Amino acid sequence: MELAKKYKDIRNSSMEMVKPLMIEDYVLQAEIFASPPKWNLAHTTWFFEELILTKFQKDYEVFHAKYRYLFNSYYNTVGERVTRPNRGNLSRPTVEEIIKYRDYVDNHILDFLNSNNINKEIIELLTLGLNHEQQHQELFFSDTKYNFSVNPLYPAYSEKAFCEDENETKNGFVQISEGNYEIGFNGDGFHYDNELGHHRVFLEEYEISETLVTNGELIEFIEDGGYDRFEFWHDEAIAWKNENQITHPMYWHKVDGEWHQYTFAGLRKIQTNHILTHISYFEASAFAQWKGMRLPTEFEWEAAADKLKWGKRWEWTESAYLPYPRYKKATGAVGEYNGKFMVNQKILRGASVVTPKDHSRKTYRNFFHPHVGYQFNGIRLVKL
Amino acid sequence: MELAKKYKDIRNSSMEMVKPLMIEDYVLQAEIFASPPKWNLAHTTWFFEELILTKFQKDYEVFHAKYRYLFNSYYNTVGERVTRPNRGNLSRPTVEEIIKYRDYVDNHILDFLNSNNINKEIIELLTLGLNHEQQHQELFFSDTKYNFSVNPLYPAYSEKAFCEDENETKNGFVQISEGNYEIGFNGDGFHYDNELGHHRVFLEEYEISETLVTNGELIEFIEDGGYDRFEFWHDEAIAWKNENQITHPMYWHKVDGEWHQYTFAGLRKIQTNHILTHISYFEASAFAQWKGMRLPTEFEWEAAADKLKWGKRWEWTESAYLPYPRYKKATGAVGEYNGKFMVNQKILRGASVVTPKDHSRKTYRNFFHPHVGYQFNGIRLVKL
Amino acid sequence: MELAKKYKDIRNSSMEMVKPLMIEDYVLQAEIFASPPKWNLAHTTWFFEELILTKFQKDYEVFHAKYRYLFNSYYNTVGERVTRPNRGNLSRPTVEEIIKYRDYVDNHILDFLNSNNINKEIIELLTLGLNHEQQHQELFFSDTKYNFSVNPLYPAYSEKAFCEDENETKNGFVQISEGNYEIGFNGDGFHYDNELGHHRVFLEEYEISETLVTNGELIEFIEDGGYDRFEFWHDEAIAWKNENQITHPMYWHKVDGEWHQYTFAGLRKIQTNHILTHISYFEASAFAQWKGMRLPTEFEWEAAADKLKWGKRWEWTESAYLPYPRYKKATGAVGEYNGKFMVNQKILRGASVVTPKDHSRKTYRNFFHPHVGYQFNGIRLVKL
Amino acid sequence: MELAKKYKDIRNSSMEMVKPLMIEDYVLQAEIFASPPKWNLAHTTWFFEELILTKFQKDYEVFHAKYRYLFNSYYNTVGERVTRPNRGNLSRPTVEEIIKYRDYVDNHILDFLNSNNINKEIIELLTLGLNHEQQHQELFFSDTKYNFSVNPLYPAYSEKAFCEDENETKNGFVQISEGNYEIGFNGDGFHYDNELGHHRVFLEEYEISETLVTNGELIEFIEDGGYDRFEFWHDEAIAWKNENQITHPMYWHKVDGEWHQYTFAGLRKIQTNHILTHISYFEASAFAQWKGMRLPTEFEWEAAADKLKWGKRWEWTESAYLPYPRYKKATGAVGEYNGKFMVNQKILRGASVVTPKDHSRKTYRNFFHPHVGYQFNGIRLVKL
Repeated sequence: MELAKKYKDIRNSSMEMVKPLMIEDYVLQAEIFASPPKWNLAHTTWFFEELILTKFQKDYEVFHAKYRYLFNSYYNTVGERVTRPNRGNLSRPTVEEIIKYRDYVDNHILDFLNSNNINKEIIELLTLGLNHEQQHQELFFSDTKYNFSVNPLYPAYSEKAFCEDENETKNGFVQISEGNYEIGFNGDGFHYDNELGHHRVFLEEYEISETLVTNGELIEFIEDGGYDRFEFWHDEAIAWKNENQITHPMYWHKVDGEWHQYTFAGLRKIQTNHILTHISYFEASAFAQWKGMRLPTEFEWEAAADKLKWGKRWEWTESAYLPYPRYKKATGAVGEYNGKFMVNQKILRGASVVTPKDHSRKTYRNFFHPHVGYQFNGIRLVKL
Repeated sequence: MELAKKYKDIRNSSMEMVKPLMIEDYVLQAEIFASPPKWNLAHTTWFFEELILTKFQKDYEVFHAKYRYLFNSYYNTVGERVTRPNRGNLSRPTVEEIIKYRDYVDNHILDFLNSNNINKEIIELLTLGLNHEQQHQELFFSDTKYNFSVNPLYPAYSEKAFCEDENETKNGFVQISEGNYEIGFNGDGFHYDNELGHHRVFLEEYEISETLVTNGELIEFIEDGGYDRFEFWHDEAIAWKNENQITHPMYWHKVDGEWHQYTFAGLRKIQTNHILTHISYFEASAFAQWKGMRLPTEFEWEAAADKLKWGKRWEWTESAYLPYPRYKKATGAVGEYNGKFMVNQKILRGASVVTPKDHSRKTYRNFFHPHVGYQFNGIRLVKL
Repeated sequence: MELAKKYKDIRNSSMEMVKPLMIEDYVLQAEIFASPPKWNLAHTTWFFEELILTKFQKDYEVFHAKYRYLFNSYYNTVGERVTRPNRGNLSRPTVEEIIKYRDYVDNHILDFLNSNNINKEIIELLTLGLNHEQQHQELFFSDTKYNFSVNPLYPAYSEKAFCEDENETKNGFVQISEGNYEIGFNGDGFHYDNELGHHRVFLEEYEISETLVTNGELIEFIEDGGYDRFEFWHDEAIAWKNENQITHPMYWHKVDGEWHQYTFAGLRKIQTNHILTHISYFEASAFAQWKGMRLPTEFEWEAAADKLKWGKRWEWTESAYLPYPRYKKATGAVGEYNGKFMVNQKILRGASVVTPKDHSRKTYRNFFHPHVGYQFNGIRLVKL
Repeated sequence: MELAKKYKDIRNSSMEMVKPLMIEDYVLQAEIFASPPKWNLAHTTWFFEELILTKFQKDYEVFHAKYRYLFNSYYNTVGERVTRPNRGNLSRPTVEEIIKYRDYVDNHILDFLNSNNINKEIIELLTLGLNHEQQHQELFFSDTKYNFSVNPLYPAYSEKAFCEDENETKNGFVQISEGNYEIGFNGDGFHYDNELGHHRVFLEEYEISETLVTNGELIEFIEDGGYDRFEFWHDEAIAWKNENQITHPMYWHKVDGEWHQYTFAGLRKIQTNHILTHISYFEASAFAQWKGMRLPTEFEWEAAADKLKWGKRWEWTESAYLPYPRYKKATGAVGEYNGKFMVNQKILRGASVVTPKDHSRKTYRNFFHPHVGYQFNGIRLVKL
């Protein structure tokens, strides 16, 4: 059965991903947002146990009574939970116990898939669970990079740096003509509720860059005093810069007069022709203004997507994360997936070098607060 | 000359407004956002001195060398300034000295208007300065209400409560049909740069309420457990509610089992048929979800405006404060007026009972952070 | 009657003290610790009303029912109160109303003193109330200096700087021989409960300076890198210095390369032969270590007091604020006067240029947290 | 050689102690004060490397250049270091690497001890290093207990609870007569600089309890409303209680109406006749006042020590941590051991169930901030 294969594949990917880690690495949570790998492995498992097995499999016995509490992330519907800042304070269950938990739940899910009790609702929840796990696979990479980055030893996760890629196309702009464009998901496959409400948006003519901003361009911005020139920055960005003493992108270090960046292969000298990454919206917006351009809206991005090469960086847009027309939250825990985050966040479009295969589409709406730079994101510009 | 008359009228309004105050009241800043009346009177004056007199009037001598520093609000272009939280820590200059400052600047401006040196740029700056003063007149009311509200003596500003008004129309909904609508300012009069970029927006058909939400409806929400039912609230709203122990609208007090609210006439019993006010976006959004409806977008609001009675409350919209197409900041201090605030804020449309006459139009975009309730704002709903 | 005269004298002193203020000045609370003059005038009045009139005068009607709540400082016994940070947020009652309140209470107290109902307990409470008022007179000076100091206009309170005095004696040390010394209050006059528990303390021989440290010596300390040399500082002092960027004493400003200090006469150039003031214990201790000396204990100070000229600065000691032998808190509100502060504070001995006449004695124990420098305090050294 | 044997014994004890841990447990730092076991093992090793090997052993090559930075605790003399809150964010070096580091340093130290280059200074530093390691052994227990306690699984460290012991003596008081007593260290063995300055202290007659306070007595205090009755508490204690919602001792949980406490053997029902532990000074002081007694001063404790059975709990005293007469900091890193902490801390005397053997004496001065309860401490009372 295809779904069982898909289940096994995606669940295995999570275990592949953590192979380079030492046991000690699984416990880290260097900042609130960067959940421990251990927690990620358990939480994705909990999702299948809580939303499928305990609901639909007769006489299912949970692996451990307290895991419901320990590995719930933010679902108020499900009940109390360990607060996010405390995830890194739990050494138990150990990694070994969590792997047993994964095996236990996997066996039950696969048995369940072989039974006759599978209906459309369950298939949808399972598919949601797998997409949820893929999101956490991507988060595993950004979280782990952050957790390693604060260690003065600059530990390497792999031989591959993961962010040393060049733009594949020549510098150029795609022109999109004025008109009403269809926006949002309108097909059969998997999608999140925030992509629904397929609707029309009127766009004026615009020109969008074929390439992403490079490290070299960002260095020019720095050298032109860009971080200190308030006229390019939002008022809240200035407060954020001052409070955190931001003078360059995250993970950048000046060593002996040369810019380096922490990568998954350790500290490496920055190449000016590589695509910039780990940038906040605040910086992306200031850079665009300095350049005399602007960021695209998410609608402009989607309308142009088929004409662009994308998939290496999540790309910041000017759009705030808001509901599409006719948006309605689902009831129950699934209803907490998206809607409650629709305030004070910015939309990113595309996908990144650490996005799992088949986990991207042009209608996908990623979202983060404007100061967040620890994703593998980047900047695409539109002419003013 | 018409402009001189307008100048005198608006400047006089500011002085009329403060008449009910005692000298001690001018010094208050009970929270960072609620600037002292004293500071408001001086800051609006500084705007004319700094942006017009020192720039265009030959040999102009500033009233006091340090006022440039003391009464700048947030204009980085102009230089250093007293930080916002410290405005309430300055007893000097005294109210009397600030009134002398106002007279000094007024005399110079009026002389200048009589001279032959007035050109279009100056007229525009002066008009901006007057609109700026009107904005601060409105802020005077919301700031002063807040500053008084924390005093257990509940001081009265006037005999009039300012927020005890009923909806003038029957309960009903206006239906707006699908289509491309013209949005933004497109005429000759005064407007802010954030209203420009006149453009088309495609809207699906919608039905918007003719009336605003009343106190009575909000009481039903409270009594139905609305403040505790997480399914209606944004994630950040829940954090805000918990941190600030929010269980009812701002200025509401339950006295002997009955809801009262602090008004400009002191503490008064709440009337259920009066229009609700002093509500945050977080609460407005939760209320709408509880009601099975939603807030309008700013575009829906503007497209329907001519068919609605509005002007008693600034009305929260679902829209984030973002630039319109072709938006470009001006250079210099004027460029800091709007653009740098275009992140993490929500749009309000309309006008309120404390908005100065002639200071409203249907394209006017007011904006505040989603937790802010101290404006005289309210809720208008759209059917889902 | 002598007590009535004393009452009138001390109450009048409070009104004399505020004469140079403008109405706006009465409202200021630039930091939590620096209560508004308005509040000081009312709180000292409340003390007489609450602890004497409402308790002992038959049929006494309070001036205003809410003042009990508004003007209680920290007496849990008495009930709820306005939190300290909010004292500066109250414009009402106005200064005029507070003066009426003072007159009302004064009249009742004086009538009461003429009645036949005065017993020892009442005389003691009244005496406590007068000493309490004298303490607040001293606080008025340190609070007002602080409240004015944050204003870039550097307002002057008087023509007199209040802290420009020289040591009256030659540089020299008094030698005190080893032995058991009598410590604490042992007479008939007024004293606080924290001075009681007259007891013996064994002291080794020591030599204590006849003079206080001067501005010039502190400048030498600065110029020798004293503020940056961690070896002289407590661990908590380093944290405090870093967090507050402390590089020189409070109220000092370097203007055109020369040290100035904010005084009650405005900003004035520092004279090296004047006695240093406004110094924290942290700085006093670091200075002493740099000098190769130490601060006296409070016992050493008291044992030497009769041989020293003191009274210009409260002098930091090495002693923590702890109970003397046999110390026992009184019951009721009076019991909250001292005992509950006996942790994490340091003892100062002596008196200062702003201490009211007759409000000092050699057994008086003043106390503040080690980072506090806004009192008129100073440094006296002991040889190591 | 005896010193080599002692070195091996104490170093081995540290490794014995961590045997029950899983690798994940070594990484935890659930609060700033509770350093990870991993860090403890490395830091005590660093002490020998930094203060002995790099200083005195010719051509010594450090194990890893960055460990100096990673494992320095608070010695400014030595240079920059990982800030304390970040110790728990370091997964590398792994536990295995840290054990290699220990072996490397141990081998060098033992070789060095066999050489002819050992002088008195080195022996003293080595002895200091071993006492330092013993202090960290004790901290290992209190830190690990804290780190485990926040886990809802309540992991057990051992079968032994470590804090379930009864008073061995009958309820009674020892009477000590008035006189001058000798205080401080005055012999040949190891001691810290803060014990020096052997001196006389005059004490009045007092009666000190032979037994420590039990859980049962603390429950009486709770049931009598002790935690809510402000008259027993310091002002700062009330703020601490409110901010942290303290209503019972640390590690206590009420389960189904019965008091339990988290112990090293997991969650266990509280026995009323066991000696109370994990109590802050704030609570100890409030309890004493409720009981109509007081805490001893450190001088009273020391003067009575030979007549008391002690060693199960560190016992809070009323004394602040202050220098003894003639106290002088050493120069260099050793000088940072004690003196810089002599402000805002309270003295504890005695030793506890987790104090290493031979690491206690009656002149030993332990010290913590008054709110700290995570040590195995307790309460001994003195009659008022």
